[in-house]
Amino acid sequence: MRTIKIAIAGAGALGRRFGYLLHKAGHDVILIDKWDDHIENIRTNGLTVEDGQEKHTVNIPIFYPHEVSDVVDFVFMFTKSMGLGDMLKDIKPIIGPNTGVISLLNGIGHEDVLKDYLPLENIYIGVTILTSKLIGPGHVAFDGAGATEIQNFVKGDEQEKNARQIVNALDEAGLNASYSEDVKFSIWRKACVNGAMNATCALLDCNLAQFESTDQAEDIIRQIVQEFAQVAKQKGTTLDVEEMVDYILDSARKVGSHHPSMHQDLVQNHRYTEVDFLNGAVARMAEEEGLNAPFNTIITQLIHAKEQILIV
Amino acid sequence: MRTIKIAIAGAGALGRRFGYLLHKAGHDVILIDKWDDHIENIRTNGLTVEDGQEKHTVNIPIFYPHEVSDVVDFVFMFTKSMGLGDMLKDIKPIIGPNTGVISLLNGIGHEDVLKDYLPLENIYIGVTILTSKLIGPGHVAFDGAGATEIQNFVKGDEQEKNARQIVNALDEAGLNASYSEDVKFSIWRKACVNGAMNATCALLDCNLAQFESTDQAEDIIRQIVQEFAQVAKQKGTTLDVEEMVDYILDSARKVGSHHPSMHQDLVQNHRYTEVDFLNGAVARMAEEEGLNAPFNTIITQLIHAKEQILIV
Repeated sequence: MRTIKIAIAGAGALGRRFGYLLHKAGHDVILIDKWDDHIENIRTNGLTVEDGQEKHTVNIPIFYPHEVSDVVDFVFMFTKSMGLGDMLKDIKPIIGPNTGVISLLNGIGHEDVLKDYLPLENIYIGVTILTSKLIGPGHVAFDGAGATEIQNFVKGDEQEKNARQIVNALDEAGLNASYSEDVKFSIWRKACVNGAMNATCALLDCNLAQFESTDQAEDIIRQIVQEFAQVAKQKGTTLDVEEMVDYILDSARKVGSHHPSMHQDLVQNHRYTEVDFLNGAVARMAEEEGLNAPFNTIITQLIHAKEQILIV
Repeated sequence: MRTIKIAIAGAGALGRRFGYLLHKAGHDVILIDKWDDHIENIRTNGLTVEDGQEKHTVNIPIFYPHEVSDVVDFVFMFTKSMGLGDMLKDIKPIIGPNTGVISLLNGIGHEDVLKDYLPLENIYIGVTILTSKLIGPGHVAFDGAGATEIQNFVKGDEQEKNARQIVNALDEAGLNASYSEDVKFSIWRKACVNGAMNATCALLDCNLAQFESTDQAEDIIRQIVQEFAQVAKQKGTTLDVEEMVDYILDSARKVGSHHPSMHQDLVQNHRYTEVDFLNGAVARMAEEEGLNAPFNTIITQLIHAKEQILIV
């Protein structure tokens, strides 16, 4: 196995799971973060991971963005969507002409940020349903299994070869990854689920089951999904509106009492949300394509208004 | 002065102010209400009103809806908008073929409820900016001055004569009323102000100034107002969108810390709102007219969803 130089930009819970397992598999991994307590703790005590019953502490180099300078083979972007551009700007020295940058972030439109910092040919996108739990500054617990799909953003033999290389590395490291022939479909589908539920639950201050149980949920969801599907179609991806609506309602019933991440961010923790990469991205892309997306437009506006009211 | 037989249907704070002053002016006034404690208290102790420095207690007959049977000349509807139909059904015996029914309720579309219980020719509509404060079950305090405009809903000499008769009675009783040549404009204008601010503040859980201070407020308000204006135009009333937007933003700055009634109803007291007579009426009328009103549609849906979540 060839040792790959990998940077994990954003060493939160999921970033550490990827970083730890790739490091353990023998790759040359560095973590990059901005949080003082994360960095100090990992530098002093090492990174502690709980993997099922086992608990390990390993030394993985961790740096502030301004401290890194050696070009790497791949960078995994594990920032928040809103922090993507800032991180890319800060770690520019490590992104060489052949460095692949991989975004597994939730939502759509990240390529519009990425393309300001690297050629489209070097972008790799994907979705992961893997999660991880931050226990403390230097401590993370793996939380269930879950698959990851990755594909090159631009078609090309070289690009596909690189995507398969990193997919293999992940899979060999135990991260259950696969090369996707149509990752954009998976990304749009996941974003559509989040777009229908996250902002609405944040605005209504409720969990998924509470929203699903209202008489209005189905109409609200269908209106949001229709606009996602219209824009996705312009971008070359087909979403089946009624199948999506059924799936979203059904999922909401199943996961019940879960508050989506936007509710956690905004209502519980008074933090900025990722709405501009969900409903906001659809509103923006619709405008660019000469389409109307009023439902996603006003939902985005209401979320931003609520951010301004709650975040002092 | 001819004595007019007047029923006040809904003897809340404002209904009592009208009832008390019309009674004092010599008219034959009855109050109608459904609340046990209101009725018992007024029957036992009389109605106590505070008018500036003066405090008066008067005996005015008060009835449950099912107790009334004598036809009256005019009925003032002072229920909540959602209670309008139920009240009209209950007091049917007092509405004769020539009884005028007056609605000063906030919002639009009340005529669509009224017309099921009486001919359009007997409907009188208006707006009032008079307020009144409920101190307790049998006790009300007048709260500032404020004008009332009334007009017959259907054009006609007889209708205008009747409208002017009740306007004169109100004015002579000290209620600062005038006959309006275009009351529909005043009603649409007031509903548009409420439609832009009430539901949004309820969804965002904020006061008028907090909403106005967000970067999104102007766009959100303009989108709502544009749809109000489109529907109003179909109904024969012209609203100047930019003038309305400026007026709404300016008012929000001035009244500042006030939470609109829909916030009080829904967020503070977990009660059903009047959204179906504001944003919901625009959504419904737009659909009837073959227009689109997506912004008012989703706002109405979100408010109804929040009602279902909060009202157990």
